[in-house]
Amino acid sequence: PDWNIEIRNGVMQLEKIFPFKNFAQALAFTNAVAAAAEAEGHHPALLTEWGRVTVTWWSHKLKGLHRNDFIMAARTDAIASAAPTAAQ
Amino acid sequence: PDWNIEIRNGVMQLEKIFPFKNFAQALAFTNAVAAAAEAEGHHPALLTEWGRVTVTWWSHKLKGLHRNDFIMAARTDAIASAAPTAAQ
Repeated sequence: PDWNIEIRNGVMQLEKIFPFKNFAQALAFTNAVAAAAEAEGHHPALLTEWGRVTVTWWSHKLKGLHRNDFIMAARTDAIASAAPTAAQ
Repeated sequence: PDWNIEIRNGVMQLEKIFPFKNFAQALAFTNAVAAAAEAEGHHPALLTEWGRVTVTWWSHKLKGLHRNDFIMAARTDAIASAAPTAAQ
């Protein structure tokens, strides 16, 4: 599935739900995306639950979407593809 | 601050926002709470963002709050108190 564009409080955000088999695998994905975020200095919201992680990217200062958000969304997909546990 | 009781889709949930100094410290707290959750086999929703983590406990099967949710909420507070980085 693709990324959805959500509008919250007037701010556009890129959002996607990544399904996993359990909590531990969801958490591992959260940590992998977090590491990429730290490396870029651009941080998403990561909602970790049993069996899924909801990743939301937006540019806080711009209050919307910037080119970097789409780059990070693509990077998030790559991380999910590399995870042997991802159940996309 | 205390835990709030939120009602989402008719389900009561215990929720609290824990502030941190940055993304890395928020993520460390997420992992600590996740470890406690795995040990108990009872899993929250953990929303990790730059500078804060929103922890939500509820009993999925009961679609509401159970004694165990309050126990895990107290344990979450203890983890936050133990974290030298927590900015409660």
